Amino acid sequence: MDSQSLYQEIIRKNTFLCIGLDSDIQRLPDCVKNADDPVFEFNRRIIDATRDYCIAYKLNTAFYEANGASGWLTMDKTIRYIGKTHLTIADAKRGDIGNTCDQYARAFFETMDCDAITLAPYMGSDSITPFLKYQGRYAIVLGLTSNPSATEFQYAKDKNDNEWFLHIIQTAAQWGNANNMMFVVGATRADRLADIRKIIPDHFLLIPGIGTQGGSLEDVVKFGINKQVGLLVNSSRTIIFASTTSDFDRCAADEAIKISKEMALLLQKYTR
Amino acid sequence: MDSQSLYQEIIRKNTFLCIGLDSDIQRLPDCVKNADDPVFEFNRRIIDATRDYCIAYKLNTAFYEANGASGWLTMDKTIRYIGKTHLTIADAKRGDIGNTCDQYARAFFETMDCDAITLAPYMGSDSITPFLKYQGRYAIVLGLTSNPSATEFQYAKDKNDNEWFLHIIQTAAQWGNANNMMFVVGATRADRLADIRKIIPDHFLLIPGIGTQGGSLEDVVKFGINKQVGLLVNSSRTIIFASTTSDFDRCAADEAIKISKEMALLLQKYTR
Repeated sequence: MDSQSLYQEIIRKNTFLCIGLDSDIQRLPDCVKNADDPVFEFNRRIIDATRDYCIAYKLNTAFYEANGASGWLTMDKTIRYIGKTHLTIADAKRGDIGNTCDQYARAFFETMDCDAITLAPYMGSDSITPFLKYQGRYAIVLGLTSNPSATEFQYAKDKNDNEWFLHIIQTAAQWGNANNMMFVVGATRADRLADIRKIIPDHFLLIPGIGTQGGSLEDVVKFGINKQVGLLVNSSRTIIFASTTSDFDRCAADEAIKISKEMALLLQKYTR
Repeated sequence: MDSQSLYQEIIRKNTFLCIGLDSDIQRLPDCVKNADDPVFEFNRRIIDATRDYCIAYKLNTAFYEANGASGWLTMDKTIRYIGKTHLTIADAKRGDIGNTCDQYARAFFETMDCDAITLAPYMGSDSITPFLKYQGRYAIVLGLTSNPSATEFQYAKDKNDNEWFLHIIQTAAQWGNANNMMFVVGATRADRLADIRKIIPDHFLLIPGIGTQGGSLEDVVKFGINKQVGLLVNSSRTIIFASTTSDFDRCAADEAIKISKEMALLLQKYTR
């Protein structure tokens, strides 16, 4: 899905919501616990209920790997179940030497058929470029993350007095383009989006950190929107664990609808 | 295995070799291809043949994930097969927000029962500390990596004119100690080991990059050795793909023995 198609989906559905399937097996509702694959059953019901109110799903690999090989099977089944109507993101934060990243690209873009993967930039271009040769797929590079300790390294200054995250984004943006790269910018750092947009006006941004982590959706849109909207705002726990009753899927959909309605209003307010 | 026990194993076996099981399914010898799980059969034979000539095995997760859920099963079986006689390292280069890293720690230290995991530092202390609370296990943080593009960010200067990798190592070393943390330093950067040892005299270092990547073993020892030796030097492809004939395991052992003999000589030369 190229960035123009993603934009068209945002306009058609009037939302830029990405739902994070951080499907922690220890937090599942009782009603799915007896299924053959409880996490898949949970995901399936969440996906069925929320498809119309989001444009992307993000699977955080950690929550699946915690269940070992069967967790990988669940992840694979979930990606296939979502299909090609939505952008599927493996939130995997990989990054390694070139020959190893060829294998990660094969794992996530061929064996698993995800549309995008998050990547850590510390090892430089070798660790990102293997992902860029796949047409219609995205390498989503960590820019400025939403966690409290992001400031330790990402806000430290380089010798030109630039913050490190700006140095990283500026350099990494040269390796690809808006049709094969995105960047992660935490919603808890929305005030820095204006600086980031000066460097990468055209790229889509994957924005975690609204909801449980406390970021402001309006600030994200105000400082981050571009001519293709350019935002995939993720919400995980707030939506998928909205309730643990037997109608948890309906409650998740209600949360997704609520966020999407806010998004629709903000699109109206900030689209030029 | 605490650092003292690791040291004792190095002295007992007279080697500090770590064998990297980068077991690329596309490069396996014909003689294992008909096994139920060809990668496991390959690993099993390599492990049986090389156990006495190394102190650690490192599994690069990418090569297993490329095979999907069945690859994770192979990884899990391999870790169990190695058992507790050797340090087992998941070369996974993970790193995420705190609640996610709790899940990665569960995945690799509980579900899979590895002794160590490699981690990327970009997201700061939140992304490392969840791994430090496991007694006898190691968070192995990327310091200075062996790949060509490592220089792009890791050699860039901070505002105090320190190279970035030194800034990272200096900061991260404060989060734990030599019994729960190690650092990755590529053998291709052996000339920088003296600077690194000034900051972390006591930590073990995981050193990839000899063999195919071209690093010098003698330089690694000369600049990197400490009072517990403090080095786990990894070799992957040179050993495991030494041959694709039916006696590939014997050929792998020969390579491991050759490297371990060099190590024994260097230990004699540089141990004080």
